Amino acid sequence: MFDYKLLAALAAVVEQGGFERAAQVLGLSQSAVSQRIKLLEARVGQPVLVRIAPPGPTEVGRQLLNHVQQVRLLERDLQRQVPALEDGGMPERLRIALNADSLATWWAGAVGQFCAEHKVLTDLVVEDQEVGLKRMRAGDVAACLCGSERPVAGARSLALGAMRYRALASPAFMKQHFAQGFDACRLARTPAIVYGPDDFLQHRYLASLGMQDGFLHHLCPSSEGFLRMTEAGLGWGLVPELQAREQLASGQLVEICSDTPIDVPLYWHHWRNGGQLLAQLTDHLRHSAHHWLVPL
Amino acid sequence: MFDYKLLAALAAVVEQGGFERAAQVLGLSQSAVSQRIKLLEARVGQPVLVRIAPPGPTEVGRQLLNHVQQVRLLERDLQRQVPALEDGGMPERLRIALNADSLATWWAGAVGQFCAEHKVLTDLVVEDQEVGLKRMRAGDVAACLCGSERPVAGARSLALGAMRYRALASPAFMKQHFAQGFDACRLARTPAIVYGPDDFLQHRYLASLGMQDGFLHHLCPSSEGFLRMTEAGLGWGLVPELQAREQLASGQLVEICSDTPIDVPLYWHHWRNGGQLLAQLTDHLRHSAHHWLVPL
Repeated sequence: MFDYKLLAALAAVVEQGGFERAAQVLGLSQSAVSQRIKLLEARVGQPVLVRIAPPGPTEVGRQLLNHVQQVRLLERDLQRQVPALEDGGMPERLRIALNADSLATWWAGAVGQFCAEHKVLTDLVVEDQEVGLKRMRAGDVAACLCGSERPVAGARSLALGAMRYRALASPAFMKQHFAQGFDACRLARTPAIVYGPDDFLQHRYLASLGMQDGFLHHLCPSSEGFLRMTEAGLGWGLVPELQAREQLASGQLVEICSDTPIDVPLYWHHWRNGGQLLAQLTDHLRHSAHHWLVPL
Repeated sequence: MFDYKLLAALAAVVEQGGFERAAQVLGLSQSAVSQRIKLLEARVGQPVLVRIAPPGPTEVGRQLLNHVQQVRLLERDLQRQVPALEDGGMPERLRIALNADSLATWWAGAVGQFCAEHKVLTDLVVEDQEVGLKRMRAGDVAACLCGSERPVAGARSLALGAMRYRALASPAFMKQHFAQGFDACRLARTPAIVYGPDDFLQHRYLASLGMQDGFLHHLCPSSEGFLRMTEAGLGWGLVPELQAREQLASGQLVEICSDTPIDVPLYWHHWRNGGQLLAQLTDHLRHSAHHWLVPL
């Protein structure tokens, strides 16, 4: 068997983002943690950590972390069957990659009670879909919520529903640019707000109106910042309906062209042998996601 | 003089996050953009782009971008003096690094009208302070809003005020853990929410209550997700007062220990010779930040 004290040290350094906090969590001195990492590297014959701030796993380090995470989930199942094994009731951690807009809107409401009841702590990683699935493949996360359907090897994907986006702007923005009524050509010449280089929602929306060319835009890599910039009249942008309900009801934001939503499907990727906790969370999402997402 | 057609191609590829969109914005074919980048690399004698998705500048590429950005700001000043030079009124882009909580709260309100009046588009980059200042030093951004006071070479820093954070939790969370009243020892054993490995606010808060050890926590690298998780009762966390006003007023969130705020100072770093637009934005922030920030 592996020496799990060494693997636990590696997991703690990566999860806590440093040796000092890893030592705190493990109840060890910092030099003891360093010692364990060095011993692990001697056994493996190569570095397991990239010594930057915060430290990140090397390729082989990632494979070890993947293994630790799987073992932990299996241990958890065993503990339920053999309660005497219970190690003081430390909550389990689940590392999950998800898209920024889900995290900014429905995610916490969907998993809150589940996490409290099952004593789960979550390490959330905000990634667009390609990177999220790459992390999944590398074993860096146990699950990934993203817009891509195709599962990675060893995992399953479950369609949860779609987030509905609407193209919104402030009344002042509408008055400034569309006092004579909405006009797609004019829209393409007003500033948009774009989340980042991988966000093509605004492009898709313009394309759906027959506008294929480039357009002016702010870049704002924050869901809430995106909404604030829209409210402040800096530009128009596709905002999750879930996030703008109050603003739409109060008239603080308006749809720039009535009832032209874009639905973005969301898939839950999870390991096939991820243990009972992950299977339960998957079931929970399967049954509750429809409260927030529209059917595919 | 340099060949600015080539430099503009480099800037467009980096700003647009790819050759295809750069070509759109420049009104060129994609192969023409590639050709210009190759020509630039031949002149410089080394690669200017790292060919990943999205493409990033090499070290020398960053120096060239730095120069392009400075020249653009100076051109803008010249155009104001010699209006005939106006090149069709394309808005100027300002690339700014800032902390996630500012972007999620007061930033858009503070700059909205300024950007509309001055026809400025913003490329925002969310970074914690060290990385933000590193980008500033590399010339990758024109300004940086962060918690670190010391300016990088060639730049000035201006104290804008402080964001006030309060330790908040949901009433259900309080009832579950503090039915017998608040207790710092108990707090250290309930789950917190932490933004990321560089977020020590929760540590500082616990330390201010005399608790020095590690604690359980969720990791949630999203300002709005952080708030949603707090509302959903997943844990307690330090939330900007600006962001939780409604929740505090409605009782959806409560301060876990009455009136124990933590103030985090914010500094605006800007190039000393960044042109008139940047100077105007700096003045604007100097005079308006007090609407959202508390005095230092």
